[in-house]
Amino acid sequence: MATSFYSSSFKRIKVSGGVVFLSLLTFFNTFAQNNILVFQSDFGLKDGAVSAMKGVAMGVSPDLKLFDITHEIPAYNIWEAAYRLVQTAPYWPTGTVFVSVCDPGVGTERKSVVLLTKSGHYFVTPDNGTLTLIAEQLGIREVREIDEVRNRRRNSNESYTFHGRDVYAFTGARLASKTITYEQIGQKLPNQVVSIPYQKPSFAQGRVQGTIPILDIQYGNVWTDIDKKLFNQLEIKMGDAIQVQVFNGNDKIYEGTVKYVNTFGEVKEGVDVGYFNSLLNFSLGVNMNSFSAKYKVFSGSTWHIILSK
Amino acid sequence: MATSFYSSSFKRIKVSGGVVFLSLLTFFNTFAQNNILVFQSDFGLKDGAVSAMKGVAMGVSPDLKLFDITHEIPAYNIWEAAYRLVQTAPYWPTGTVFVSVCDPGVGTERKSVVLLTKSGHYFVTPDNGTLTLIAEQLGIREVREIDEVRNRRRNSNESYTFHGRDVYAFTGARLASKTITYEQIGQKLPNQVVSIPYQKPSFAQGRVQGTIPILDIQYGNVWTDIDKKLFNQLEIKMGDAIQVQVFNGNDKIYEGTVKYVNTFGEVKEGVDVGYFNSLLNFSLGVNMNSFSAKYKVFSGSTWHIILSK
Amino acid sequence: MATSFYSSSFKRIKVSGGVVFLSLLTFFNTFAQNNILVFQSDFGLKDGAVSAMKGVAMGVSPDLKLFDITHEIPAYNIWEAAYRLVQTAPYWPTGTVFVSVCDPGVGTERKSVVLLTKSGHYFVTPDNGTLTLIAEQLGIREVREIDEVRNRRRNSNESYTFHGRDVYAFTGARLASKTITYEQIGQKLPNQVVSIPYQKPSFAQGRVQGTIPILDIQYGNVWTDIDKKLFNQLEIKMGDAIQVQVFNGNDKIYEGTVKYVNTFGEVKEGVDVGYFNSLLNFSLGVNMNSFSAKYKVFSGSTWHIILSK
Repeated sequence: MATSFYSSSFKRIKVSGGVVFLSLLTFFNTFAQNNILVFQSDFGLKDGAVSAMKGVAMGVSPDLKLFDITHEIPAYNIWEAAYRLVQTAPYWPTGTVFVSVCDPGVGTERKSVVLLTKSGHYFVTPDNGTLTLIAEQLGIREVREIDEVRNRRRNSNESYTFHGRDVYAFTGARLASKTITYEQIGQKLPNQVVSIPYQKPSFAQGRVQGTIPILDIQYGNVWTDIDKKLFNQLEIKMGDAIQVQVFNGNDKIYEGTVKYVNTFGEVKEGVDVGYFNSLLNFSLGVNMNSFSAKYKVFSGSTWHIILSK
Repeated sequence: MATSFYSSSFKRIKVSGGVVFLSLLTFFNTFAQNNILVFQSDFGLKDGAVSAMKGVAMGVSPDLKLFDITHEIPAYNIWEAAYRLVQTAPYWPTGTVFVSVCDPGVGTERKSVVLLTKSGHYFVTPDNGTLTLIAEQLGIREVREIDEVRNRRRNSNESYTFHGRDVYAFTGARLASKTITYEQIGQKLPNQVVSIPYQKPSFAQGRVQGTIPILDIQYGNVWTDIDKKLFNQLEIKMGDAIQVQVFNGNDKIYEGTVKYVNTFGEVKEGVDVGYFNSLLNFSLGVNMNSFSAKYKVFSGSTWHIILSK
Repeated sequence: MATSFYSSSFKRIKVSGGVVFLSLLTFFNTFAQNNILVFQSDFGLKDGAVSAMKGVAMGVSPDLKLFDITHEIPAYNIWEAAYRLVQTAPYWPTGTVFVSVCDPGVGTERKSVVLLTKSGHYFVTPDNGTLTLIAEQLGIREVREIDEVRNRRRNSNESYTFHGRDVYAFTGARLASKTITYEQIGQKLPNQVVSIPYQKPSFAQGRVQGTIPILDIQYGNVWTDIDKKLFNQLEIKMGDAIQVQVFNGNDKIYEGTVKYVNTFGEVKEGVDVGYFNSLLNFSLGVNMNSFSAKYKVFSGSTWHIILSK
């Protein structure tokens, strides 16, 4: 029960013999760390915090390849940290190690963990809700708690406020470079993570309801959590009109009609459209303009959307 | 005619024999992709779009070295994307592959191309004007259209709005890592690119006219497209005064005198100067201050400048 | 006197024989450049300046690993450039080469230097105050002036305003990749750097006085230069109140009481705290809020703080 993924697999190897051995090796390879370490935080890029984390990582192993998701997560916004992981991690190779540091509770009793997903990606982070969406989308293979006695930068015990540098970057780097195995992270925890509750999208009586988890900030598009399968129950054809209502809590912020398109270029500038974004979720946009700015529609757990024919 | 640069070179090899063979090999080497992939976009750094592109690239080959020009191109500003390529690409080694994604027409009929310049740099981009300046400065050796059937991330056909990730990053990564040859990009096109029309600078009757293609944003300096050769026709000596007029369309925004210097430190703080910038184009600045903010001078195709003695 | 660190060490080797030879080799190894090149500047990320520097570096050696501290140093703010080096450099491995370009005096008589610290880190920069804090913290082993005749990008003599690209990135890359030795940088200078004067923190009559060199921008925390040893002379226990006064010049901006904690999570949201930051300096914060914004406290040489029991 409490044995790790690796060791239980090894047991199976002993039982199974040659051919299985080979296919399991392939399996291991697939899940092996690949020297790629990807950082995300709410630190911003104006000071040296991100660089200190990367310096620590290069001190662990100069063979690591360091990348970023973003460091512009709004301060303390765990939900957005969770969303950015889902938006990007699936596009990185199996074995990639992610370090996510949005940690308003640094130094308190929240656990420091490493999630290994069924897809073979690793996530090093405080277990404070950051893993809500990625655990759901990629599946939990195993969760381990970081043993902060063994897995902590030397001489960093006096520092209480920068676990990103002293624990997470250090541990992520040691894991990605195979300086330690996944088992050496620390003890295995139950297969669950701390989750931020959110309303799942649904279809009923000819209407699809969903939430607006995030904006496509740069262009002002409005992203929902309604996927294509759900949307298709509305039986709206490409090019047809979609009735849209957007609420913030109980206040109706927007009511209108958008055209269902594949891509913006199908309509003239300034036309409102509904389309499926790069994560294949239903979204609202305006060709060459910002839907969010035009209609004062924003995102967060209080923002809801209703679609109908 | 339709044969590629590589294959036509090979033909010459067969004709020419040993010594030439070696020198052509050197030539090939010079033009070979070098595992360096440089990204530019108008995505911003606040979300995960850039990271998704890099994840795709690392999935193609973990040996790639990934860099950036900027991702802060103002949304849809193709002209600025074009300018940033010219400002940076010549400083990167021959063989470097650039992926530029400023793509307001994503999903429409604009072509996706890879330009190989005479200098041996590759540019993967929608052919929407982004190549205007780089084609002019580095010269067109060959243009190929990306065959989006073969050169597209697997299972990405449902996604219509993120060719940066699904086509350009994927194809750029395959090219830079030599997973495919330049020929395998797709069919050869005529040696031309879509160009944004712009007024060339000129000298007449003791005056040099030019445009203000861009600001040196961080410091507020005003960059023109007037090079040293043109400027020298004014026969103004270092340290002398330059008469300057700046127009936005027909409105005169600024008229004044600046001192011709090599560098800002030659004058006191607050003094207006004319100098040649790091691209060796004539520019206006104020020592320790912003010329743009001081005189409300900005940039774009409607902004003109006249210099005289 | 003017002999270099390396050559003087070699002399000692000749005198000392086998065993010492080996340990010195180890010593050399520790100090050897490690192919890691870390950039910092006040260029911002909106244009191509940083990318041009990195292109030049990759042209010197594709084996280099390029990283950043930040490029968001406020324009011309040498003090902040100095602070960011101290905040980050100690976390990078020995042998790392840093290129810092905050250079309001570009093209004037300020010297271009490479500092080798006692810790074995290299700093390539104009000697304009940027080295104030790092020289103090890591110690000066040797300073050399960049010989700009030999150590300058080819054909860059016409460019007077971008030494970051033409001299510093080029030289840093050649040093980090061992294309040149430290001695080949140029002539040895006296063991000193240009320093920005600043008030050192002190304890007297039951009060600790210090300055506010910088803000923790992203979160609005206020960082001082008061370390734990100095603070401990106040004999304030964890959990107790600290009396705080903040002055900008002679104006008292804030007077109040904060709770001494290890980390923010120990108090409720909105509570003011005093704590030791990730550099182990005394700092002021508000749990889940900005101390700076709440009390209009900012940073710089005119900002002082007094702590008492």
